[in-house]
Amino acid sequence: MANGDAGTRERSYRKGPERRAQILLRAMELFAERGAGASLRAIGEAIGVSHAALRYYFANRDELLVEVYRAHEARACKRPGRDERSAVELMEESAEGNRSIPGLVELYATLTTDALRGQQHPAAREFVQERFRRVRADLVARIEAGQRSGAIAADIDPEDAAALVAAASDGLQLQWLLDPDAVDVRRSLELLERLLPGGR
Amino acid sequence: MANGDAGTRERSYRKGPERRAQILLRAMELFAERGAGASLRAIGEAIGVSHAALRYYFANRDELLVEVYRAHEARACKRPGRDERSAVELMEESAEGNRSIPGLVELYATLTTDALRGQQHPAAREFVQERFRRVRADLVARIEAGQRSGAIAADIDPEDAAALVAAASDGLQLQWLLDPDAVDVRRSLELLERLLPGGR
Repeated sequence: MANGDAGTRERSYRKGPERRAQILLRAMELFAERGAGASLRAIGEAIGVSHAALRYYFANRDELLVEVYRAHEARACKRPGRDERSAVELMEESAEGNRSIPGLVELYATLTTDALRGQQHPAAREFVQERFRRVRADLVARIEAGQRSGAIAADIDPEDAAALVAAASDGLQLQWLLDPDAVDVRRSLELLERLLPGGR
Repeated sequence: MANGDAGTRERSYRKGPERRAQILLRAMELFAERGAGASLRAIGEAIGVSHAALRYYFANRDELLVEVYRAHEARACKRPGRDERSAVELMEESAEGNRSIPGLVELYATLTTDALRGQQHPAAREFVQERFRRVRADLVARIEAGQRSGAIAADIDPEDAAALVAAASDGLQLQWLLDPDAVDVRRSLELLERLLPGGR
């Protein structure tokens, strides 16, 4: 937060949240189109925001990436009927939403790879760890609901199944992005949906 | 191949394959321990090989990463009894082999993320695309064998199932690496193995 003179900082302070949201929106559009490969400086140039201004709102590239992905997720959470989906249907819907924005799947892959190098990328690690815990907890709740209604075998461990469903969704989107003609995310997830009742 | 004078090149030419294999082995040990975050120069320093020598054998960091992963896979392929495994058992075995070398899972994640940015990383893209095709084809053959023996329902599409199994294995290892206490790769894959017969 060392950039800008007092005047700029005051202006930024007043306009802060709006301006930050505007930058996030533009960065999200940029990533959706071109992926997450660019440096913070190049991102600034592409969306017409000075490097200093970017640095005022986001400590580093990791933080911007995390916030862009968070904004994308917040949008996705507003889809109607979300509560009624089964665990796999939720992943299908999310994968379907990502189909039109391959850059965001790449952004997500970048964040997870960075997260594996947690020492160099603490913000990415914290976000991705927390995100996986949240996603698995959400899937566990849906799988337990399926077990209560008799749709899923009672002896399936919901934690094991939740990790499996989240993994399948991530891995399929990655394979599809690399080979769109060879992999059909929806069909493979529908297969998992068919299998998950398991041994009823 | 622009480095080194004629004498060096002749020596390298004679000693080439051995020296290259030696560098690969050391790089593999380094990645297994520390992951794939380092630059080619830092890799050279860590394994005691000059940057020029590294560049003589590997055009760039991507190429070294690909070759290290290839060498790792070649070792894994030599495990006995590999032919008799089911599709999911094969993934279980591979995941089990990776447990002791988290750096290689990170190396793999780095390669796949780089592959998504194919324009900047053509070597990674070609390798990862080709690898996924090979893995899926291998899994398809095992699933079809399962269908012939009656172990897997005949109406399951082998291609859809192969992509699903490969995806689950990749995604689970990633989640485990980020949260070893929360995710059990073996148990989630055993669940998939239990489910895959599907609707017999």
